[in-house]
Amino acid sequence: MCGTDDASSYRAYLDELFRAGLLISSGVRGVYGRSGTFEDVIMGFERYVTREGKPLSPEVMHFPPLLSRAHYTKINHIHNFPDLMGSVHTFMGGDPEHRELVRKLADGEDWTRDLAPADVMLIPAACYPLYPTATGTTLGASGRLIDLVSYVFRHEPSDDPARMQIFRQREYVRLGTAEQALNHRNEWLERGKAILQSLGLAVEAVVANDPFFGRGGRLAKATQREQVLKFELVIPICSTEKPTAISSCNLHLDYFGHAFGIDGPDGQPAHTACIGFGLERIALALFKTHGLNVDAWPKGVRELLTLA
Amino acid sequence: MCGTDDASSYRAYLDELFRAGLLISSGVRGVYGRSGTFEDVIMGFERYVTREGKPLSPEVMHFPPLLSRAHYTKINHIHNFPDLMGSVHTFMGGDPEHRELVRKLADGEDWTRDLAPADVMLIPAACYPLYPTATGTTLGASGRLIDLVSYVFRHEPSDDPARMQIFRQREYVRLGTAEQALNHRNEWLERGKAILQSLGLAVEAVVANDPFFGRGGRLAKATQREQVLKFELVIPICSTEKPTAISSCNLHLDYFGHAFGIDGPDGQPAHTACIGFGLERIALALFKTHGLNVDAWPKGVRELLTLA
Repeated sequence: MCGTDDASSYRAYLDELFRAGLLISSGVRGVYGRSGTFEDVIMGFERYVTREGKPLSPEVMHFPPLLSRAHYTKINHIHNFPDLMGSVHTFMGGDPEHRELVRKLADGEDWTRDLAPADVMLIPAACYPLYPTATGTTLGASGRLIDLVSYVFRHEPSDDPARMQIFRQREYVRLGTAEQALNHRNEWLERGKAILQSLGLAVEAVVANDPFFGRGGRLAKATQREQVLKFELVIPICSTEKPTAISSCNLHLDYFGHAFGIDGPDGQPAHTACIGFGLERIALALFKTHGLNVDAWPKGVRELLTLA
Repeated sequence: MCGTDDASSYRAYLDELFRAGLLISSGVRGVYGRSGTFEDVIMGFERYVTREGKPLSPEVMHFPPLLSRAHYTKINHIHNFPDLMGSVHTFMGGDPEHRELVRKLADGEDWTRDLAPADVMLIPAACYPLYPTATGTTLGASGRLIDLVSYVFRHEPSDDPARMQIFRQREYVRLGTAEQALNHRNEWLERGKAILQSLGLAVEAVVANDPFFGRGGRLAKATQREQVLKFELVIPICSTEKPTAISSCNLHLDYFGHAFGIDGPDGQPAHTACIGFGLERIALALFKTHGLNVDAWPKGVRELLTLA
């Protein structure tokens, strides 16, 4: 099963994961509960990554899955990926407006137009909430290295179990000079590949682009590829023709340095780079590669994940 | 500081937590990054709770912070707590609509009206996504016990560091007969109290009510108290007059059993009950009680949290 990339093969593998109890249907495509076993695998992978990252002495930060709306509008996500956004709206009226809201719900009318935008957006990438916290700072000579993990949201309903609307990214982000950022990206590309391969995952590094929106996005995609800003580590999960990216290594140039007034040690706008591990996708790749029974996974893999 | 409940004392303690680097400002009240140390405390508390819950052999499930909109409208959250809701909206137009969206942003107009509701809501409590997954089932004789943890959203911007808009709840939920649910609530009230007291937290159990909305909510609050459906474990964090609930034990009667057609072992609509641990609030209570330097916390507390 799951050898081609058509919708029915996605659905078949998803149903297999449901039957095994590893994922739990929420009734919405791409939004799933995770079993304890699924979480154990993710926590084990996180422990492994933490061990590998420890010699680099990263700062550790953890952001909840919400980002300031004001900060969101300072980056070009709304220009580049509007179809993926998650804007949080709430009810801000009093008793009379509330009666009308409840009436609309009861009468099957659209009650969501009565809501007002809250000050927050769902975060599209684990590193987005980081940059605003460095607003107006100047980095020291060695820059900064930050270890992040967060749930992120992308509105792309799909039956592909690896294309979730809400999933976790573990990231190592570098802020510094252009050279420091480039080195970070290149070093973590190799380190990430080694980590994943040590777990029996036959990943391949490919040049990639983000899914920029619409007609205007075509040029952005081409430019990103030409400049070799993004590498993905891919492996077949549900399709051999379209392997799944389970990790990506990205160079942002001085985009975030400019947007938030972060200066590098050289006085120029800071350059940034990140590696992101897609935690659910890595778990799914492990289940695909080693089978749905974690107890029967190779001893070496279980040891690296400290599952034994 | 922080001895009274006025806004300035909240703000003073929040600033102290920012300065200590334990919480990180996002620019939005009640939305904070957490430091690695803050996370270590939360993970340590979770390990402790897991050890205490293990003899009960709970099912472990983990839900992301989103709930199906269709399921959300089956419960009365929109009637009872509309002001706390988080409705997720996104952009579903094409190129022309996108140009207009971007123009509105550039011209300082309200672009959020151009969004459409997605199929999901932010979850208001960690157990809400659980009940729909049991739709149409009949429970076995011993019912079910589920161990959950999730980020939850409540739109209530505040400078009180303990009143976050997005925070984590760890829950143990019981589905079963009325008696099984009541016993669960009562047993976990004692167990929860013992866990928190063993960590040096001088919690007190008080009868409480949820913040039902508006004029109509007054009766609901009174009824909930009369029926003694909700206990909170409270401790002063920023105010001695208004201590903070760091945990609550709730009896839902057959509310969720009715809403999702879940039958108990006796053929009646299932009764449900839960204990919820407010993880960030527990961490804050620990910092308030034992100081901001985790290394200097009492040896016994560090051992229970396996921080040593």
